[in-house]
Amino acid sequence: MAGNSFGRFFSVTTWGESHGPALGAVVEGCPPAIALDAADIQKDLDRRRPGKALTSPRAETDTVEILSGVFQGLTTGTPISLIIHNRDVRSSDYSEISRLYRPGHADRTYEQKYGLRDWRGGGRSSARETAARVAAGAVARKFLAGCGIGVKAFTLALAGIECTRFDAEQIDKNPLYCPDAEAAEKMAARLKEIREKGDSAGGIVEIRAKGCPAGLGEPVFDKLDARLAAALMSVGAVKGVEIGEGFAAAAMLGSENNDPPTAEGYGSNHAGGILGGISTGMEIIARAAVKPIPSITRPQNTVDSEGRPAVITVSGRHDVAAIPRIVPVLEAMTLLVLADFMLHPFPKRG
Amino acid sequence: MAGNSFGRFFSVTTWGESHGPALGAVVEGCPPAIALDAADIQKDLDRRRPGKALTSPRAETDTVEILSGVFQGLTTGTPISLIIHNRDVRSSDYSEISRLYRPGHADRTYEQKYGLRDWRGGGRSSARETAARVAAGAVARKFLAGCGIGVKAFTLALAGIECTRFDAEQIDKNPLYCPDAEAAEKMAARLKEIREKGDSAGGIVEIRAKGCPAGLGEPVFDKLDARLAAALMSVGAVKGVEIGEGFAAAAMLGSENNDPPTAEGYGSNHAGGILGGISTGMEIIARAAVKPIPSITRPQNTVDSEGRPAVITVSGRHDVAAIPRIVPVLEAMTLLVLADFMLHPFPKRG
Amino acid sequence: MAGNSFGRFFSVTTWGESHGPALGAVVEGCPPAIALDAADIQKDLDRRRPGKALTSPRAETDTVEILSGVFQGLTTGTPISLIIHNRDVRSSDYSEISRLYRPGHADRTYEQKYGLRDWRGGGRSSARETAARVAAGAVARKFLAGCGIGVKAFTLALAGIECTRFDAEQIDKNPLYCPDAEAAEKMAARLKEIREKGDSAGGIVEIRAKGCPAGLGEPVFDKLDARLAAALMSVGAVKGVEIGEGFAAAAMLGSENNDPPTAEGYGSNHAGGILGGISTGMEIIARAAVKPIPSITRPQNTVDSEGRPAVITVSGRHDVAAIPRIVPVLEAMTLLVLADFMLHPFPKRG
Amino acid sequence: MAGNSFGRFFSVTTWGESHGPALGAVVEGCPPAIALDAADIQKDLDRRRPGKALTSPRAETDTVEILSGVFQGLTTGTPISLIIHNRDVRSSDYSEISRLYRPGHADRTYEQKYGLRDWRGGGRSSARETAARVAAGAVARKFLAGCGIGVKAFTLALAGIECTRFDAEQIDKNPLYCPDAEAAEKMAARLKEIREKGDSAGGIVEIRAKGCPAGLGEPVFDKLDARLAAALMSVGAVKGVEIGEGFAAAAMLGSENNDPPTAEGYGSNHAGGILGGISTGMEIIARAAVKPIPSITRPQNTVDSEGRPAVITVSGRHDVAAIPRIVPVLEAMTLLVLADFMLHPFPKRG
Repeated sequence: MAGNSFGRFFSVTTWGESHGPALGAVVEGCPPAIALDAADIQKDLDRRRPGKALTSPRAETDTVEILSGVFQGLTTGTPISLIIHNRDVRSSDYSEISRLYRPGHADRTYEQKYGLRDWRGGGRSSARETAARVAAGAVARKFLAGCGIGVKAFTLALAGIECTRFDAEQIDKNPLYCPDAEAAEKMAARLKEIREKGDSAGGIVEIRAKGCPAGLGEPVFDKLDARLAAALMSVGAVKGVEIGEGFAAAAMLGSENNDPPTAEGYGSNHAGGILGGISTGMEIIARAAVKPIPSITRPQNTVDSEGRPAVITVSGRHDVAAIPRIVPVLEAMTLLVLADFMLHPFPKRG
Repeated sequence: MAGNSFGRFFSVTTWGESHGPALGAVVEGCPPAIALDAADIQKDLDRRRPGKALTSPRAETDTVEILSGVFQGLTTGTPISLIIHNRDVRSSDYSEISRLYRPGHADRTYEQKYGLRDWRGGGRSSARETAARVAAGAVARKFLAGCGIGVKAFTLALAGIECTRFDAEQIDKNPLYCPDAEAAEKMAARLKEIREKGDSAGGIVEIRAKGCPAGLGEPVFDKLDARLAAALMSVGAVKGVEIGEGFAAAAMLGSENNDPPTAEGYGSNHAGGILGGISTGMEIIARAAVKPIPSITRPQNTVDSEGRPAVITVSGRHDVAAIPRIVPVLEAMTLLVLADFMLHPFPKRG
Repeated sequence: MAGNSFGRFFSVTTWGESHGPALGAVVEGCPPAIALDAADIQKDLDRRRPGKALTSPRAETDTVEILSGVFQGLTTGTPISLIIHNRDVRSSDYSEISRLYRPGHADRTYEQKYGLRDWRGGGRSSARETAARVAAGAVARKFLAGCGIGVKAFTLALAGIECTRFDAEQIDKNPLYCPDAEAAEKMAARLKEIREKGDSAGGIVEIRAKGCPAGLGEPVFDKLDARLAAALMSVGAVKGVEIGEGFAAAAMLGSENNDPPTAEGYGSNHAGGILGGISTGMEIIARAAVKPIPSITRPQNTVDSEGRPAVITVSGRHDVAAIPRIVPVLEAMTLLVLADFMLHPFPKRG
Repeated sequence: MAGNSFGRFFSVTTWGESHGPALGAVVEGCPPAIALDAADIQKDLDRRRPGKALTSPRAETDTVEILSGVFQGLTTGTPISLIIHNRDVRSSDYSEISRLYRPGHADRTYEQKYGLRDWRGGGRSSARETAARVAAGAVARKFLAGCGIGVKAFTLALAGIECTRFDAEQIDKNPLYCPDAEAAEKMAARLKEIREKGDSAGGIVEIRAKGCPAGLGEPVFDKLDARLAAALMSVGAVKGVEIGEGFAAAAMLGSENNDPPTAEGYGSNHAGGILGGISTGMEIIARAAVKPIPSITRPQNTVDSEGRPAVITVSGRHDVAAIPRIVPVLEAMTLLVLADFMLHPFPKRG
C-alpha cells in the first residue's frame, strides 16, 4: 500500500536510499527447489552497473548477498532477502541540493508529500533503488527459465537516433544494448556531444518476452498489459508505455490491426502477444519511453525551499542518459510481472 | 487477485457479462456524508451510452440503481452497490461466434485461460463491462468535486485525423468529444467512409485532471503515473499510455524537458504534473492510444475451436470506433485513481 | 482495505444493509467449469433462515439470484454476483433507535467512525449481512466438494448447556444444529425461559473440515489458523476462536499436547489439523465463542446522541441467540478460507 | 500473499531463518518525522531475548541495525529496513532432525507444502522469526506513543498456575512478566520441575491497549477484533484468541454482557473495547492461549521421511515455555494492528 511492494504472489519489496548503508529487496513467493546462488543475481546486476565509459562516472560494485530463503543451493519457498551495500557514497557532493530543488527531480514532491526528505543523492527516489529491482528480477528470471520463458530488452532509440535494423546478436556486444551496431556508434557519438554540452538524452527501450504460454493475465483490471504498464511506468524515467503496435494502432484500420488466428497461433502479432488482457502465446512486445536524465550540469533556474529564485548547477556523478542502465531494469520489471502471473491458478499448469 | 477489483482505499469491484441479466459495480471506501443519488451516476453513464448515430447501433438504456451505501441521500461509508440491467440483449446475433474465434478479440485467450467461455457478445471481455466502471467513476467524481478536483477527457485523434486546436468549450458540443469542431467534422466523415467499407478505426484520447494537490502517489511501485498507466491500459482497446511529453520526451534534451520550479509551481509542464511518481500540483496530463475496434463486418480469416481454417463475418451491432464511448471510461479510470490516492494518509489533509 | 472483501485468489465482497432494497456478494476467483445454480446456494441460505420457532420471529425468504459468472450451468472464472432482495422490511420498528444507542451494538461506533449511521436495523452492522457470506460460502462449498473437502459446523454449547455426546447424524435433525439430541432439548427449554425474561443467550460452535490435503496455509502471517481466526472473528457475535485444544492447551504439558507423527498421519489431533500454520492432513477443528445477542427486550440504560441518559427497550423482531443461525455462517467463513488456500500455488495440485 | 507481510498501510515484511546469516523486517508506511533510532528498537528486542535463566539457554545478542528509512534521526516515510544478524548458530545441534520429524513442529507440514525444508533449527518456522516482528512492533510503538496509545501484555497463566491479582507495577519486575508476584514465584518453581522432567508448559497471555480512539477497525471482514485475532494467532504457539469476556461470554446472558453506554464511554467493558468490529474508546483487551513448547527432551515417537517409526530425543537449546518470550511478540502484533488502523482514512484525525 505504501508502494514499496510489487506483485501479488511472486512479489518483491524494495528498501533503501541512495546514500544509506545498503539497499535491498525481499522476494516472496518464489517457488521452492529452484537452484539459486548470488552469482545468478550478480550477472544481472553487473548489466546495470555504472562505470561504463559512455554513461556514468560513478564506480559502484553492487555486490549482492543472499541472506535468506536458500538452503543447500535451492530456494525453500520462504522469502529471499537480498542486500547490496552502498560503498561509493560521498554525501558531500549533494550538500547544495539540500537547499535547492533540482528541476525534473522528485525533491520537492517528496517534501510536499512527507514534509521532509532525505536529500542525499535523491534518497529513495534515486535510480539506485532500481538495483534492488534488478536483483529481484534475476530471481524471477531463474524461475521463468525453468518454465521456458525468457525476457530480453534493448535500446530502440537514443538521443534522437533510431535503430534501423534488428540483430539480436548485437545487443550484448555494444555498451548501449542496441541491436543495430551502426546506430549504436552514432548514439555513442551523439551522447558524447550532449555530455560535453552539459545536457542529457532520452530514448526508447523495447522489451520482448518469448515462451509465455497463452492464458496469463487476469480479466478486467489486472490485464497482463495493465500490469506491464504499471511495472514499466513505475521505473523513474519512463513517461510512456505501449504494447504491440501501441500508439501506431491509433491510426490503423481494424482490418490492418487484427491478427488472424491460425491453428498454431496468429498470422501476425500487431497485438504484441496480448488480447483482452491475456497472453496469446505469441511473443510479448512492449516499449517504454525514457525521458532525458534531469540531472544536467548546465545551470538551471529553480527555487529554494522558501520559494526564492536560484540557479542550480547539479554536480555529482550523473549519467548522460538512463539508457543503457535502465535496460536491465525494464527487463527485471517484466520478469516480475510474468513470474507473478505464472503462479496464478489459471490457466492450470501441469 | 482475480482482477475484477481496482483501488486500495477507494476501490471498485465490477461484475457482469455482456448478455447476462445485469452488470454492476461495488464501490468500497467512499467517504461518508457525500450527497449521492442515481442521477449523479446516470449523467456519466449517459455520456458513454451507445445509440449515437455515428458510432453504435445498439440501443441501450443503461439505467443505474443504487442498492446500498446511501442513506437519506448521503453516503454512509459502507459499500455502494450499483446495478445496471441488460435490456437490449439478443443472443442469437452471436451464435456463429460460439464456434469461431473473432480476430482481435479475447475469444480464444479466455478459452485458453479458463477452458471455456461465455461466447455471448464477448461475455466478460465485452466493452459493456466499462459501463460499471463509468458508474463507479461517477461516485469518485462526486467525492473529488468536493476536493476541488475535476477530470476531463477528450478526443485528440480519430481515424488518422488529429485535432489542431484545443477549445474546451467544444468538447461536449460534438458527439466525438473533440475540442476542435472542424476536426470533429472531418473525423465524422472519415468514420462514415470506414463504416461503409466494413472496417473500423482507432484514435488517441487525452485526459486532464485539474486541482490535484501536490503529494499524491506513492514512491517506487505505486507511483501516480504507474497507477494511471495500469488504470488506462486496463481498458480493453487501449494499447499505449503516456504522461506529459510521453514518447516525445524520448527525443528531447534534459534542458528542454526539465520544468523549472517556481515559487507557485513550475514554469512549464512537460512532466504532465508528476515528478518521481508524485503529483506536482500542476495539471495532470495523460494520453491513451485506442486501437481500432476488432469487430468489423468485412470477412476475415480465422479458425474454429478445432483449429480448422474458416472465414468469419462478424455481424451484430458494433461500433466503428471505441471513441467516443471510451472517453468517459478513461475519465472514470482516472477519477478512480485520484480518489484512491486522496484517501492515502500522506500528504495529510486538513 | 475498507473491509468488505475477504480472500485473495478465491475472494468475496459483500454489500448491503439490513433495510436497504437488497444485499449481495460478488465471488471472485471461483474456478471455471464448476456446475452451479441458484438451488445450490439456496440450500445453504435456507439453513440460516430465521422463522424457525425457537430463535427468530422475522420471516424472511432470502431468495438468491445469480446475476453473472455462470454460463450454461457452469462457472466461467468471472465474478459471480449474487443478490438477495430484502422483502420483510419494516423500518418503523427501528425509529426509536435513531436517537438512542443500543447497548452491545455498533450504533455508536459506526457513528464515531463515519460521523453518521444508517440506523435502520443496524444498517451494515446487522446480522443480515451474513446472508451474503452464506451465499458466497455455498459457492466455495461446491468447489471444495469437487476436491473432496467438506465442512460441518454444529452447536457445542448454548445458554450454558454443553453437549456431552457427539452424534453427527443428529446435527441436522434438530433446529439447534446440535450433535446431542438430549442437550438440544435442554437448550431449547432454556432458550424459552430466557426469551420469556426478555433476555438472550450465547454459546459455542465447533467447525470441522474433513478431506483437506496437507500443505494449506502460508507461513508466518497467513497461517491457516490465523486466516481461520480472522474469518470466524469477523462474524459479529464471535468473541473468541480456538484451534484444536485451544485454550485447554495452555494448561497441558508438551508431552501431552504433541501429536506423534505416524506413517499415515498423526497418532492424535490435539493440534486441530494445523502445525506451523499449515494443514497436516488431519481433520481441521476450530471453535468459536458466540456472545449473547445484544438486542434484548428488557429495559436497559443507555444515552442518546447528545450523551443524555435514557432507558431503551429494544423492540423489533430479534433472535434470542445467534445460534443456530450463526452455524451456517461459520461454516461459510471456513469454506471461504479453505477455497482460497486451495488456489494457492503451493502445495502443487495435480 | 505468500504470507510474510502483515498490514495494509503500516505494514511489515519479515524474512530470515533460524540458522541463516541474518533475519530482518521491512516496515512500510510508517509516518514521516518520527524520531527513531536503533536503541528504541533494541529496548523491545531485549525484552524477548533468551538467556534468562528460567526459560532459555540460548545466548543471543539480537542486535538490530536500521538500514534505511531514517534520516537525521527522523523517519522519512520510506521503508525502514531492520536487520538482526544471527550470531550464536550451531547447526550441528540439529543434524538428527534432518531425518526425523519433531512432534508438534512444522517439519513435515513445510515439507508437504514445499517438497523440501530448511531443517536447521526449524528454518523459517522457528520462533526466531518473531525477533523481526518485535523489531517492527517497536517502530509501531514509537508512532503510536505519539498518538497517546500504549500496549502492554503480561502473563495471566503459566504451567497451570493462574494469576489471582493484577498489579501493573509487577509486570516488569519479574522475569515472567507476571502482574502477580506470588503467582510468578509458583510459576517459576513449576517450570523448574517441568524442565527437569524433560517436558514443557503453556499458558495464557493478556494484551491491553490504552488510549485508542473510538472508530478504529473496518466493518465486516476487517473488524478490529478479526485483525487482532489473525495477528495473535499468526504467532506460532498461539492456539486460541479471545476479546473481552471471550469464551466466558458464551455462558452469559445478554443483560450481563451488554455494556451500558454512558456520556463518557461505557459503564463496563465486557466487550473488550470493540463493538461491531470497531474500537469503542475503552481499553482493548485480548487474550492468547499459548501451547506448550513442542521441543521436549523426553524421547517421543515419530517417523522419518520414509514413514518408518523412530524415537526422537530433541536436543538443542530449547525454552521450557514460550512464555515469557512470547509476551513482547504479542505486544508487537497488537501494535502493528493498531498502527495500521491509525492510518486508515476513517475516523478522520486532526
